[in-house]
Amino acid sequence: MPRRRLHEVLSGRRLTRLEYKHALPKLQDRLLDAQFELRQAQSRAVVMIVTGIPAAGRSEVVNELLGWLDPKLVTVYGFRGMNDVECQRPVLWRYWRIVPPKGRIAILHAGWYQELMQLAGRGRSGKGSRPPELKRAVDRIRQLERMLVQDGVSLVKVHLHVAPETQKKRLDALQSDKTTRWRVSTEDRRLARDYHAIERTLESILAATEQPTAPWHVVDGTDAEHRALEVGRRLLAGLEVAQRPPAAAPAAPSKAAKLATRVSLTSLPTGARVAEEEYDEQLEQLQGRLALLSRRKHFERHAVVAVFEGMDASGKGGAIRRITAALDARQFRVVPISAPSPDELARPYLWRFWFHLPPRGNYTIFDRSWYGRVLVERVRALAPARDWQRAYAEINEFELQLAEHSVIVAKFWLSVSRAEQLARFGERDRNPLKRFKVDPEDWMNRKHWNEYQRAARDMIARTDTAHAPWTVVAADDKRHARLVVLRALADRIETALG
Amino acid sequence: MPRRRLHEVLSGRRLTRLEYKHALPKLQDRLLDAQFELRQAQSRAVVMIVTGIPAAGRSEVVNELLGWLDPKLVTVYGFRGMNDVECQRPVLWRYWRIVPPKGRIAILHAGWYQELMQLAGRGRSGKGSRPPELKRAVDRIRQLERMLVQDGVSLVKVHLHVAPETQKKRLDALQSDKTTRWRVSTEDRRLARDYHAIERTLESILAATEQPTAPWHVVDGTDAEHRALEVGRRLLAGLEVAQRPPAAAPAAPSKAAKLATRVSLTSLPTGARVAEEEYDEQLEQLQGRLALLSRRKHFERHAVVAVFEGMDASGKGGAIRRITAALDARQFRVVPISAPSPDELARPYLWRFWFHLPPRGNYTIFDRSWYGRVLVERVRALAPARDWQRAYAEINEFELQLAEHSVIVAKFWLSVSRAEQLARFGERDRNPLKRFKVDPEDWMNRKHWNEYQRAARDMIARTDTAHAPWTVVAADDKRHARLVVLRALADRIETALG
Repeated sequence: MPRRRLHEVLSGRRLTRLEYKHALPKLQDRLLDAQFELRQAQSRAVVMIVTGIPAAGRSEVVNELLGWLDPKLVTVYGFRGMNDVECQRPVLWRYWRIVPPKGRIAILHAGWYQELMQLAGRGRSGKGSRPPELKRAVDRIRQLERMLVQDGVSLVKVHLHVAPETQKKRLDALQSDKTTRWRVSTEDRRLARDYHAIERTLESILAATEQPTAPWHVVDGTDAEHRALEVGRRLLAGLEVAQRPPAAAPAAPSKAAKLATRVSLTSLPTGARVAEEEYDEQLEQLQGRLALLSRRKHFERHAVVAVFEGMDASGKGGAIRRITAALDARQFRVVPISAPSPDELARPYLWRFWFHLPPRGNYTIFDRSWYGRVLVERVRALAPARDWQRAYAEINEFELQLAEHSVIVAKFWLSVSRAEQLARFGERDRNPLKRFKVDPEDWMNRKHWNEYQRAARDMIARTDTAHAPWTVVAADDKRHARLVVLRALADRIETALG
Repeated sequence: MPRRRLHEVLSGRRLTRLEYKHALPKLQDRLLDAQFELRQAQSRAVVMIVTGIPAAGRSEVVNELLGWLDPKLVTVYGFRGMNDVECQRPVLWRYWRIVPPKGRIAILHAGWYQELMQLAGRGRSGKGSRPPELKRAVDRIRQLERMLVQDGVSLVKVHLHVAPETQKKRLDALQSDKTTRWRVSTEDRRLARDYHAIERTLESILAATEQPTAPWHVVDGTDAEHRALEVGRRLLAGLEVAQRPPAAAPAAPSKAAKLATRVSLTSLPTGARVAEEEYDEQLEQLQGRLALLSRRKHFERHAVVAVFEGMDASGKGGAIRRITAALDARQFRVVPISAPSPDELARPYLWRFWFHLPPRGNYTIFDRSWYGRVLVERVRALAPARDWQRAYAEINEFELQLAEHSVIVAKFWLSVSRAEQLARFGERDRNPLKRFKVDPEDWMNRKHWNEYQRAARDMIARTDTAHAPWTVVAADDKRHARLVVLRALADRIETALG
């Protein structure tokens, strides 16, 4: 038996005007209550995505909803083709930017399905074959939606659908009246001509992105009253979700975890300490190399994200300044990461890092980074185990998206010994001009030395990927460490530029 | 006697290495203290702008400073040519975006002088003549700097300069060594060939943008030690400024203030109330007109900023929804303005509005706006008189910058009578589905009715400009008001598209 098409399985529900007038006040009442609760509790945000086949009533439904809700707590977003700034970042960047803070609702016209639909549309001629690009686009979305849900976002995905006859009748009616003709776009007419192919594409997208944590709701768009109430009810369900879905079962100890014991965090460079004269000479030479690489024509197609992690006083700031000294001031930004602000805490974990991604031809250098989740937040129990444990996979996916977008990701663990750290703390305490570097937290972190080392080993074992490898830098000798960092960074860029 | 050129009046100060090593720790010590105070007090931000003639040591000085300060509280910004997103907004937009919050320092390489220098460079051939475009660019900057200072930003403007021989010697030395050659850009070489012309341009810019509240400090860049200490001292002075400059003397009652008594805030439309049938027909027709205008090819060169002000329950939300129903969801954003967040309070007043400006071809509709300063903040004494009094001129300048950038600014005052407002409050109280519209503040505001009306009259008299006129809408009949708004908006857009 051939599979039935989407328009053949629509609910076919109709409402009389009277039924609608009876049901609406109750729904609106509950929506307002739920919206109020959402704002009061500040424990989650709601993202509703509305897709639809043309003329199924997508805009009408959203406008209707807006009339019911408190407009101060809802924002509606539509997306055009990407602008220059968006093009220069990974495809999901512009959606990350508008993730609402806890307490608020965002309604997205198509949202991240926009690019997926275009991509699927292009691949349609290939019939059934799913090119790798499309598969990755689906994976990115599945992973994004799982992460949002885990991070406290209620996700509501609604697809409006109508049968081909209904679509045609609606478009014809709008078109025949000169006061409503503007409502039918060229794009609508093009898609309508191709109803069955479009429908198949939509079906495959819905199927590919269906997940227990992020299910689709197909709503029959034939009856205006029915579809409005139905979408309203879906939103209400999203608002009323009591808590996060149960965590996935803890992963079995992976190969990577076993490998962690083999990660070596040497702090002592092999060979002698680098003498000042040799250092100056090599520094100048390496900075020149980096400067020239960053001015190559091909560099404009890439960007660099450099990540510095390491114990306090491991020399991150000094190493970073040796890099930036080689760069044009307009070409880089250094982003120091400390405890998140309230605004950042109200968003999914990775949100604040997405915000700082560089445009093409530029550097963002993170002085500490998203790895805080599996370092300080793990060691000091600032995040529940379920959250930092899933972070490894989320981070790998994040960095993969960077790499797919030709961003060169370079990660450095500056490894100092416990004795050297103590010596540097002492020096800071003695030197008043380094007082901004002294923090009681640093001493506290030092107490957890072994746990940090273990966390760092796990981190490196689980996130040392081909697209974003770690460089462990023996950092007891600052000069040595700085030269190693510069050389590794220049090597990575050179390889990427080919 | 001919006027002496800038390089002829440089201080010529030199420091021995010993003098430097003696002076530096004291300066750094005070800088760290001042930075700490700045963060603790949270009462002001610091913006330092560093300009310079090529090879005067601009980058070197900034790098040096960065080594002295606590990097967590400073951000350095360089600016390239404008990207797509920046091009679509008024020229100062990208600088507004990075104004630091109170407690922080931003160091800007050239900052808003970048475009001014380009503009002045282009006009150089005209010798002495100052084209109107350049004059406006200077005015914009003078006004911006005054406003920043009044709004609690310490502004430090430093210009580094060297004589032509020094410049040449430095560029030659860098160029002759292959490990440092990359430090000399093509642009540097071009500018160096033209030393005297460039110097004259810089002189004229410095002179034109010198103000008591925002003075320039010319620093001799010849000696590396001297210039670093000197710039550090300027920053220190900016950090240590105790309080805001004295307010300008209150303006004498202007013609506009007298005219305020003549502003009529009629709430009753002339003629009969609009009947439902007539309303539906006209609404459809006006929405169609607006939709077609917004889809015209020429519209892509413009953008629309629509502002809605009016007493509570005057029908702002309803009027806005009648506009957005005619627009593509990807084409507009509705921004409801309420009390500023802590993040917004930490910035100059207009900051949060600049943030929401639409790209070309788009609408931003403000449900309440920057006029809050001269309405609620004046009436409820939330802003000191000196602040709301200067706001009229600042707002006119802001809107002028929008208009200069082909943004169509449409402002609506929805005028309800006191009796009609009471009737609507009553309806809201009776209808639980309008409960999100009921706010104890609304009743409080109602008590200040006459003061609001006076504030609205003053506002209209002082900010009803040719480039951003007010439309006073008689709003006791909602249908009438909505049709008037739609028609006025469509008229303004039509005129602008020509």
